[in-house]
Amino acid sequence: MDQNITIEDVAKLAGVSRATAGRVVGGYGNTSEKSREKVLQAVKELNYRPNLVAQGLRGQSTKTIAVILGSIKNNYCNHLIYAVEKEAQKKGYNVIICNTHEDIRQEIRHLQNMYSRQVDGIVMMSACRTDEEIEEQYKELYSGETPIVFVDRKIKGLTSCVIQSNNELASYEATKYLLELGHQRIGILATEDYSTVNERIKGYKRALEENGIVFNPKNIQFAAQSEKNKVAEMTAKLLREKSQVTAIYVLNNSLCAGVLSELKRQKKNIPEDISLLVWDDEDLNELLEITTVVQPIEEIGKMAINKLIHDMRTKKGAEESTKEILDSHIIYRSSCKKVNS
Amino acid sequence: MDQNITIEDVAKLAGVSRATAGRVVGGYGNTSEKSREKVLQAVKELNYRPNLVAQGLRGQSTKTIAVILGSIKNNYCNHLIYAVEKEAQKKGYNVIICNTHEDIRQEIRHLQNMYSRQVDGIVMMSACRTDEEIEEQYKELYSGETPIVFVDRKIKGLTSCVIQSNNELASYEATKYLLELGHQRIGILATEDYSTVNERIKGYKRALEENGIVFNPKNIQFAAQSEKNKVAEMTAKLLREKSQVTAIYVLNNSLCAGVLSELKRQKKNIPEDISLLVWDDEDLNELLEITTVVQPIEEIGKMAINKLIHDMRTKKGAEESTKEILDSHIIYRSSCKKVNS
Repeated sequence: MDQNITIEDVAKLAGVSRATAGRVVGGYGNTSEKSREKVLQAVKELNYRPNLVAQGLRGQSTKTIAVILGSIKNNYCNHLIYAVEKEAQKKGYNVIICNTHEDIRQEIRHLQNMYSRQVDGIVMMSACRTDEEIEEQYKELYSGETPIVFVDRKIKGLTSCVIQSNNELASYEATKYLLELGHQRIGILATEDYSTVNERIKGYKRALEENGIVFNPKNIQFAAQSEKNKVAEMTAKLLREKSQVTAIYVLNNSLCAGVLSELKRQKKNIPEDISLLVWDDEDLNELLEITTVVQPIEEIGKMAINKLIHDMRTKKGAEESTKEILDSHIIYRSSCKKVNS
Repeated sequence: MDQNITIEDVAKLAGVSRATAGRVVGGYGNTSEKSREKVLQAVKELNYRPNLVAQGLRGQSTKTIAVILGSIKNNYCNHLIYAVEKEAQKKGYNVIICNTHEDIRQEIRHLQNMYSRQVDGIVMMSACRTDEEIEEQYKELYSGETPIVFVDRKIKGLTSCVIQSNNELASYEATKYLLELGHQRIGILATEDYSTVNERIKGYKRALEENGIVFNPKNIQFAAQSEKNKVAEMTAKLLREKSQVTAIYVLNNSLCAGVLSELKRQKKNIPEDISLLVWDDEDLNELLEITTVVQPIEEIGKMAINKLIHDMRTKKGAEESTKEILDSHIIYRSSCKKVNS
């Protein structure tokens, strides 16, 4: 491959403008089929391959955005990636995905790797826990020249731009709905200690308080998505006779299958024996008619990309922390039943 | 950042070997906590950042593998990525993921992007359909200097190394099981036209033939995962009275939720009204006790990484096509019922 072949050479041979050749080679925007063929023919004849990395080193855009997040197995993350890809593609960007498995060291490794590969910007759902801070020597990774937009989870002590849904309010409303149905002892199952989860718990507590119900810490149990046995065990803990829980409120969709499987094992029917309300919709929820808090994932992804592209263009990092909050809503199905309180 | 700072400078300041410094900075292998701290302190003092891209341009490993595949929403892909990441991490490699949405142009764009970013090797589940060939001008992307290991789907007319499960045989056995239960009219729902799907259909036909049953093309319907309405429509087609189908055999897990939702709409119970057998296990299958063909995803991912690392070391491309075939097995649950044939 001749390294000196440029996009201009390709455009010249194809008899099209540089912009058209760029669009065909970069795979973004619209061109006529005829122009496309001519450009591809020229690419082939000249054996041209765009050197994105060199472009990146020259400070030019390499038309690539990285999404770094906890786990593609998590349904919410999965949908978020789709939303991000959809908007990024519209704007002419490729998306590459990095899985942190909720491990902060893995997250840092991915960040370093992405910088070395000259991506233009990063959308991140950080693995950083609520009260955790980024170690001093890594802080610059989170606030360097390459813009980062955070989704959902903010990092303590960091100036950042966060886009998220109204976790506290939506959780308050979901709890209020259960209270109105007569449920007084509502058990919660959640993943551990992220800012989103904490906000949802705050909303739950506020609704209880407003209704004069004393919060019982034993009614909140935690487990990680990957700990299948622990999800079942914690569900069983909520269901133990003494607690008299009449509803289970699952703050993370990824725990839902585990909860359902324990309910099944104990032969508890929904909603006859126990009411169920969960966060984040998926096929299973519709199929089993589970009442669900639905976050505006499409809008979150779209806003993240547009904010990121804006920051990439202005080349301005976050000078002060900002937060964009989008509304969730509840889809009422048949998994919550009226009880005598 | 001073571009002239090297890993040797870091090692010297930290008072450790170059190899130790490399392991800490690259985030792979084992080092003592003490060495780790010393190296990280030196990294900070010198403001050192490894230039992976420059390493890649010098023909050195950049310790990164890309996985390019159809859709992270597909449960099988999802598990495959985990298996690949697990093995890659053990061997000291980072993994980055690219979603093609089963679009060959998107796949080509990702390939170009990954080459430009100097990844060491690629694991690919191609979006290329059975009878499709790669356009001539893109062929070199699929057989260049960077090793590629293909999972599941082979590409026509390309010398390649493919790792997959025994699709034909496992499908033959699944069909035989249904036949032994007395089902003679077995409806199939599948995604369109990939080599894996075709092999599964071959196994199905072989089992029918051995049992003297004439294959009815109307008993096979196709839909893509993303076409939710079409999955329901095609399921309804299989269930229309004239066809007298007594079992539905779903060749791709991603279609399962759509089938279940149509069965529910028609108030058909499993297995009383219709038997159900699907490919690839997930939480839902266990929860609903669906009999399932399970592919050895862990082993496929592990083998893909080990083959890839081997090819990366020997710097030898595929000189002849090879195929590694691993065994699937069936988990028998309660979704298939005996019928009078």
